[in-house]
Amino acid sequence: MSGPTEKQSDVPATSRRNFLRTGAVVGGAALAGAISRSATAADADNLPPNVPEWMKVPGDPMGSQPYGTPSPFEKAVVKNISKDLPQYLSASGRTPLQDLDGIITPNGLFYERHHAGVPTIDPAQHRLMLHGLVERPMIFTMEDIRRFPSQSRIYFLECSGNPGYKKPYGKTASDLVGLLSCAEWTGVDLKLVLQEAGLQPGAKWVVAEGADAAALTRSIPIEKCLDDAMLVYSQNGERLRPQQGYPLRLILPGFEGNMNIKWLRRLHVTAEPAYSREETSKYTDLMPDGTAHEFSFIMEAKSIITRPSGGQRLPARGFCEITGIAWSGRGKIRQVDVSIDGGRNWQEAQLQEPVLTRALTRFRLPWRWDGQPTIIQSRATDETGYVQPTLAELLAVRGENFFYHNNAMWPWRIAADGEVSNAANS
Amino acid sequence: MSGPTEKQSDVPATSRRNFLRTGAVVGGAALAGAISRSATAADADNLPPNVPEWMKVPGDPMGSQPYGTPSPFEKAVVKNISKDLPQYLSASGRTPLQDLDGIITPNGLFYERHHAGVPTIDPAQHRLMLHGLVERPMIFTMEDIRRFPSQSRIYFLECSGNPGYKKPYGKTASDLVGLLSCAEWTGVDLKLVLQEAGLQPGAKWVVAEGADAAALTRSIPIEKCLDDAMLVYSQNGERLRPQQGYPLRLILPGFEGNMNIKWLRRLHVTAEPAYSREETSKYTDLMPDGTAHEFSFIMEAKSIITRPSGGQRLPARGFCEITGIAWSGRGKIRQVDVSIDGGRNWQEAQLQEPVLTRALTRFRLPWRWDGQPTIIQSRATDETGYVQPTLAELLAVRGENFFYHNNAMWPWRIAADGEVSNAANS
Repeated sequence: MSGPTEKQSDVPATSRRNFLRTGAVVGGAALAGAISRSATAADADNLPPNVPEWMKVPGDPMGSQPYGTPSPFEKAVVKNISKDLPQYLSASGRTPLQDLDGIITPNGLFYERHHAGVPTIDPAQHRLMLHGLVERPMIFTMEDIRRFPSQSRIYFLECSGNPGYKKPYGKTASDLVGLLSCAEWTGVDLKLVLQEAGLQPGAKWVVAEGADAAALTRSIPIEKCLDDAMLVYSQNGERLRPQQGYPLRLILPGFEGNMNIKWLRRLHVTAEPAYSREETSKYTDLMPDGTAHEFSFIMEAKSIITRPSGGQRLPARGFCEITGIAWSGRGKIRQVDVSIDGGRNWQEAQLQEPVLTRALTRFRLPWRWDGQPTIIQSRATDETGYVQPTLAELLAVRGENFFYHNNAMWPWRIAADGEVSNAANS
Repeated sequence: MSGPTEKQSDVPATSRRNFLRTGAVVGGAALAGAISRSATAADADNLPPNVPEWMKVPGDPMGSQPYGTPSPFEKAVVKNISKDLPQYLSASGRTPLQDLDGIITPNGLFYERHHAGVPTIDPAQHRLMLHGLVERPMIFTMEDIRRFPSQSRIYFLECSGNPGYKKPYGKTASDLVGLLSCAEWTGVDLKLVLQEAGLQPGAKWVVAEGADAAALTRSIPIEKCLDDAMLVYSQNGERLRPQQGYPLRLILPGFEGNMNIKWLRRLHVTAEPAYSREETSKYTDLMPDGTAHEFSFIMEAKSIITRPSGGQRLPARGFCEITGIAWSGRGKIRQVDVSIDGGRNWQEAQLQEPVLTRALTRFRLPWRWDGQPTIIQSRATDETGYVQPTLAELLAVRGENFFYHNNAMWPWRIAADGEVSNAANS
């Protein structure tokens, strides 16, 4: 990154005076000074800029990429893959949140978490079985599923162990909460399929099983299945990627990621939960009183500033937009507050439309950095009135043995040189 | 595709009776019969389905795809590349609309149209010059641009020659209107950058130039530049793809695609339009009276049914959802009507939320196909009250020499065997 100072020498004195004015106010913050100082004045004759090499020769021909890829200059923007986790037990790849904008996560960077690798499934051979406490047990092909009326909805998905409670908490937004992404999902409302089979009296749970080598199995309350649960076959327009459950995945909006069973092959309607491995030895928490906190489905309200965030550097003092994402498994985000002074004072951020239920919500706050070290952080409030807690508040309630559902605020430390680091590690 | 008939032999007689009932009504259409008949009954013991091969071995390890790709079983879903167009003059790659769901187009399948190939641009070397009738001419680096406050918004983009007026009109939805896609764009409101430079009196047009070998140049009315125009650097969360203008593109919501200048390097503020090649010899139309229809910026309201659509086949008589997309350069879609009888009668389709201004809107209509040949089509109405015309209505007004801005309805013919073809070709 080139700083503004080298460039000011190129700026004619008359223009420089204009650049230093601070009259213009945009979005509540004085903009003109900061931005103009870092831009170079065009020369007095208004000549066009130099013609770059890539204008002198034809570019790559059409068809060299029938399915596109990012620029080679973006090759570092990939999933952030944990290297010290057992490959076939708890492998994960995090979304590089600090490099992304908006609320949609592109499919190539959607987070991954699997327990026995990614199966390559032939959709023509894939089947979904629906049995147990139903009037008409059925086996569906993918074509059968796609004959039902479909819906598309934008929802976030988040791993419940995002990021756990053990120091160090990581350096970047991706290290901290990169097991989080958001997409437009298309599929069939699960309730339609259950109605088609006919539920028997006593049907209280649906046990969902994946077609991976882990046969990942979770029990879902029937109320969720009859509410907004979906059988999904497409993500951001195209068919699911293998890493996301191709050809069929369960989506349970707002519920912890592992319950959104990928490679879905079986729905067993039962009176009791299965108490499967993934809801007993995993995805439960030991409480201070020695009891287990189980079936902790809902991901509570949370937010994080993604720019500026850990590993980045403020380009200069002056105007700097603070932006980040907020989400809640209980519905819409109502408000995001941002503190630029270590949590003493808070300002309400602008929420970017559309604000959708159980989707990422982008927030923004104009800010003028004065060049002094400080700590910035965000705090989400959802439509139920729930307010995102501090890490200290969470630890006080949950004790030392908790691992999942850490939805604390994450403070970023800004040093005098503009470097940003994770203040929760210190 | 396997039809329902082979499978019925597997269904026990008791279950078959249930499958044939038609009592359940979902979304306004009798569903139960159609779907159940094509699904296989699970056997009486409720045994789980056979364990497929991919559950017996671990899947692909994490990290084999740090940037993901679609399933190998979806390798046919790629851009639909015109083979008979001159590569460095009017090459195009169309989005496979008939294979997509929802409203977001994944970046790998976003339509392409370029005039001199795709340049590979180093963002550190890229500059945007803003000059002409401004108080303070400036040259911006990408870092300068990204210091402005940003916004993300979902907009469609459509080529004005989508699809022209000459028979044959193509076989599939992609052949017809695949020069159309929709994404979440992130960037800076152009008006902020113009305000930063300060417009001089008499500034009426902004001439935008791309950094490709064609130096594609279009003149934009200042009113649009001060309204919703954006300088965009990200698409669906990640940085623009090279095919979409990496590292910087102009987005003019609702305006014809070629004006949304890719690889944007120059904004020249002027009193008059440039009358560049792409707004004189191209992207104008000869009217019946011999005058030229120029500066035809806005893409009028349009819609198309994408499922069932040309090249597909209805799996069986009975329930079949009709779904498609509608859009308007003038704002939101207010209503989409669907005819299933060749245009005599019309039913209002359901619009999927969120319905956003100048974005694709997905519509759906439950339908029960009786097995008879027919013609289906959709008709969009936007919030200004404008109604999508028939092809005959358009041709009557525009005559024989028009090429651009064909927003006619596209009727699909359904044969007795369920095969779908383009009725406008016959």
